[in-house]
Amino acid sequence: MKLLRHGAPGAEKPGLLAADGTIRDLSGHVFDLSGAALDPDTLARLGAIDPATLPVVDAGTRLGPPVSGTGKFICIGLNFSDHAAESGMAVPPEPVIFMKATSAICGPDDDVIIPRGSEKTDWEVELGVVIGKTAKYVSEADALDYVAGYVVSHDVSERAFQAERAGQWTKGKSCDTFGPIGPWLVTRDEVPDPQNLGMWLKVNGEMMQNGSSKTMVYGVAFLVSYLSQFMSLHPGDVISTGTPPGVGLGMKPPRYLKAGDTVELGIEGLGTQKQTFVADI
Amino acid sequence: MKLLRHGAPGAEKPGLLAADGTIRDLSGHVFDLSGAALDPDTLARLGAIDPATLPVVDAGTRLGPPVSGTGKFICIGLNFSDHAAESGMAVPPEPVIFMKATSAICGPDDDVIIPRGSEKTDWEVELGVVIGKTAKYVSEADALDYVAGYVVSHDVSERAFQAERAGQWTKGKSCDTFGPIGPWLVTRDEVPDPQNLGMWLKVNGEMMQNGSSKTMVYGVAFLVSYLSQFMSLHPGDVISTGTPPGVGLGMKPPRYLKAGDTVELGIEGLGTQKQTFVADI
Repeated sequence: MKLLRHGAPGAEKPGLLAADGTIRDLSGHVFDLSGAALDPDTLARLGAIDPATLPVVDAGTRLGPPVSGTGKFICIGLNFSDHAAESGMAVPPEPVIFMKATSAICGPDDDVIIPRGSEKTDWEVELGVVIGKTAKYVSEADALDYVAGYVVSHDVSERAFQAERAGQWTKGKSCDTFGPIGPWLVTRDEVPDPQNLGMWLKVNGEMMQNGSSKTMVYGVAFLVSYLSQFMSLHPGDVISTGTPPGVGLGMKPPRYLKAGDTVELGIEGLGTQKQTFVADI
Repeated sequence: MKLLRHGAPGAEKPGLLAADGTIRDLSGHVFDLSGAALDPDTLARLGAIDPATLPVVDAGTRLGPPVSGTGKFICIGLNFSDHAAESGMAVPPEPVIFMKATSAICGPDDDVIIPRGSEKTDWEVELGVVIGKTAKYVSEADALDYVAGYVVSHDVSERAFQAERAGQWTKGKSCDTFGPIGPWLVTRDEVPDPQNLGMWLKVNGEMMQNGSSKTMVYGVAFLVSYLSQFMSLHPGDVISTGTPPGVGLGMKPPRYLKAGDTVELGIEGLGTQKQTFVADI
């Protein structure tokens, strides 16, 4: 299933993308696509519905983040060896974890606000993993059982805030609208191998990142297991698994986003996002 | 007012501490003490209730965290010059920000679980600030208007996870139960000067931290204003403002918590916490 949430910000309703490309409303079947709706039983119940019986939603309707009430937005740093190299950093001996504020989460095509004082707003296409069952001390072999599905995640980053403003990356990762996710939460059954997905990102139509989840240092199953050694992962939590090479910081000279720029990004089978970057007036 | 939440984990009800020392139930007046209940109007409405008209709650009832649904648990690092010195770090030129997972939040007297593999679980008494109104780009002069009140916050920290396991502190700060807050959310009107509060912490009855919010490098108003330049602060968000000297890491030799240890901590006017540290079996 390709689950989604449609409607105005803060008032989204649950829905799905039908095989015929129409958006269908699920309001009659589930209150919202929060973590509580991502358990295997609820997903099975929703999956058994014939989409043709669901109301059609206007094609132009805004999509919000496909999961609501995310409690943790955990990111993995430097998880592609080529990206580590372009950042001038070594591949870490175990995953680097940082948090984005959940208040940064927005819809896949919402405007991204460049914060006041920013001169180094950068892009990062990432594979997002959405947790479906509480995970604590789970093994790598069992880890994917705790995953509800996958999303495209844009880990928008302000490099000066991240690295030049007194320590800890969260400061440059948590600005409002710095976390577009979606368009869909694609359930795990439709993603047989999360380690073999093409990932790309364009700025103003120019391809900047063109990689694959194949070159992740630490794969999804390892990361879910690893994180669960430090903290419980709860339904609706999102893990953004790191970006392939091609970010603005890595260019010579570095290149950053300015108001009016458009960014498009996508992951094979998970859909695409398109954002306009705007000034914070 | 001294607001609180009483009852079993996950099923807490709203309440308050009356002047006569009794716990009173507020279930008839507010659904829960989430961020949405912390706006000035709701606080004024609750403040107008005569506590004597409220049902008495058994004195031995467990207290949970006094605010529910916290979206962000933001911490300030190295915010006391003496603590920076004992950690072997310089006072940062501007605040260091990191996040604790909100899933770490627990009640003030709940057992704290030492995670598997931990050998360096440490203590940190901190002044917690609870946001009452959405704050974005607010000035330092206006910042306290956005504060609903204050809590005792225990920023439990695993030093090896924090600093010896490949980068970014969040890994050693986010373990389940590493965020006791409470016992009460003391509303701002009862804390005329948040920069003049005694703060203390004892391990097995021995005083380890005995300081004052007076020696914070960056005070509450500055921090709320500063954070709001990077991200919106929302009602129910908690800011833990850093710890005074006396943590285990700073001792020669360092001293850490083991199963069976008890930690008591408190802040002047904000109440006390007492936790037993237990192994994660």
